[in-house]
Amino acid sequence: MKLIRHGAPGDERPGLVDAKGGLRDLSGLVRDICGPALSPESLARLKLVDPERLPLLPQGTRLGPCVGGTRNVVAIGLNYADHAAETGSPIPSEPIVFNKAPSSLCGPNDTVILPKGSSCTDWEVELAVVIGRPASYVHANEALNYVAGACICNDVSERDWQMNRGPTWTKGKSAPTFGPLGPWLVTLDEIPDLKNLAMSLDVNGQRRQTGSTATMIFDVAQIVAYCSHFMLLEPGDVITTGTPPGVGLGMDPPTYLKEGDEMVLRIEGLGEQRQKVVAFDAWTARAAAGS
Amino acid sequence: MKLIRHGAPGDERPGLVDAKGGLRDLSGLVRDICGPALSPESLARLKLVDPERLPLLPQGTRLGPCVGGTRNVVAIGLNYADHAAETGSPIPSEPIVFNKAPSSLCGPNDTVILPKGSSCTDWEVELAVVIGRPASYVHANEALNYVAGACICNDVSERDWQMNRGPTWTKGKSAPTFGPLGPWLVTLDEIPDLKNLAMSLDVNGQRRQTGSTATMIFDVAQIVAYCSHFMLLEPGDVITTGTPPGVGLGMDPPTYLKEGDEMVLRIEGLGEQRQKVVAFDAWTARAAAGS
Repeated sequence: MKLIRHGAPGDERPGLVDAKGGLRDLSGLVRDICGPALSPESLARLKLVDPERLPLLPQGTRLGPCVGGTRNVVAIGLNYADHAAETGSPIPSEPIVFNKAPSSLCGPNDTVILPKGSSCTDWEVELAVVIGRPASYVHANEALNYVAGACICNDVSERDWQMNRGPTWTKGKSAPTFGPLGPWLVTLDEIPDLKNLAMSLDVNGQRRQTGSTATMIFDVAQIVAYCSHFMLLEPGDVITTGTPPGVGLGMDPPTYLKEGDEMVLRIEGLGEQRQKVVAFDAWTARAAAGS
Repeated sequence: MKLIRHGAPGDERPGLVDAKGGLRDLSGLVRDICGPALSPESLARLKLVDPERLPLLPQGTRLGPCVGGTRNVVAIGLNYADHAAETGSPIPSEPIVFNKAPSSLCGPNDTVILPKGSSCTDWEVELAVVIGRPASYVHANEALNYVAGACICNDVSERDWQMNRGPTWTKGKSAPTFGPLGPWLVTLDEIPDLKNLAMSLDVNGQRRQTGSTATMIFDVAQIVAYCSHFMLLEPGDVITTGTPPGVGLGMDPPTYLKEGDEMVLRIEGLGEQRQKVVAFDAWTARAAAGS
């Protein structure tokens, strides 16, 4: 299944994508695509539903982040050997774990706002997974049983705040709209091989990132197992698993997002995200004008 | 008001403390002490209630963390000059921000479990504040308007994982039961001066930490304002503001928690926490035996 959340920001309702790509409403069947709806039992029940019998949503429906009620957004740093190299960092011997504020999550095609005072906001296409049931001290060989599905995450990052306002990375990873998530949550049964998904990110039509989950240092099962030894992972928690090479920080000279840029992110089988970039002042001016 | 959450873990209900210290049930009036119930309007409504008319809870009622539905647990590192010194760290020039997993939160008197493989679990008495309404880019002189109240947090920390499994601190701060919160959320109108609260922590009856919020490097208003420039703070979010000197890491030799220890934490006007410490293996054995 490809599960979605649709509607106004903060007021999203559940839905799914039918075989023809139409968006259907699931409001009558689950309250939201959130914690309890992500359990294996709940997903099995939803799979019995005939999408053709569900209300079709109008064209242009806004998509929200594909999971709701997320309490913990865990992120893995430098998890592609060639991305570690481009940032001048050694290959980590164990996963680097940091957090994004849950309030940074937004819809896959929402506008990305450059925060007030930011001059180094960067892009990162990433494979994210969503936890389906509580995971504590799980082994890698069973870890995928705790995962409901996968989706694209743009791990938007303010590099100056991440690297120079430390020692942790939280400050550079947490601004509102720094976590476009979706377009849909693809359940694991529909992903042939999590370890072999092509991924890309374009800025203004120019390819910036090209990669594959095949070159991840730590794979999804290892990451879920690893994190579950340091914390209880809960249904709806998001783990975004690192980015391949091609971020703005690694360009010569480093090149960051600016007002008017457009990002397009793709991961094989997980769809596409498309975000316009707006500067904070322009965004607040537009909001004040009601447009 | 002193707001509480009572009942079984994960199934807590709202309540408050009456003038005589009795615990009263608020279930009929709010769903939980969580996001919407923490707004200034909601708190003003609750203040009109006569506690004597609410059902009295039985003696021995378990207290949960004093706020529910928390998505973001933000923590401030090295915010007391003398604590920074005891850990061998320079005094920070701006707040150090890290995260605890929201699943680390627990009741104020719940057992603290030493995680599997831990040998350096340490204590930290801290003043925590709970956000009452969305805060983004707020100024320090208005920041307290966004705070619903304050409580004690024991920022339990695994020092080896915090310091040697980095670069971020998440791994050492996030285990289940690493965030006892409460006993109650004291609304700001009942706290004469957030900047002058005596605080202490005892282990097995021996005083380990003695301090006062008077020696914080960055005060609550500065911290809330600062964080709101890097992320949107949401109602129910917790910010725990750092610990005074006297942690186990700073002792000679460093001394950490062990099975059977008891911690008692106090902050002036905010009540008392009391936690027994249990090792992971003993805890799972007891859980298996159903005791």
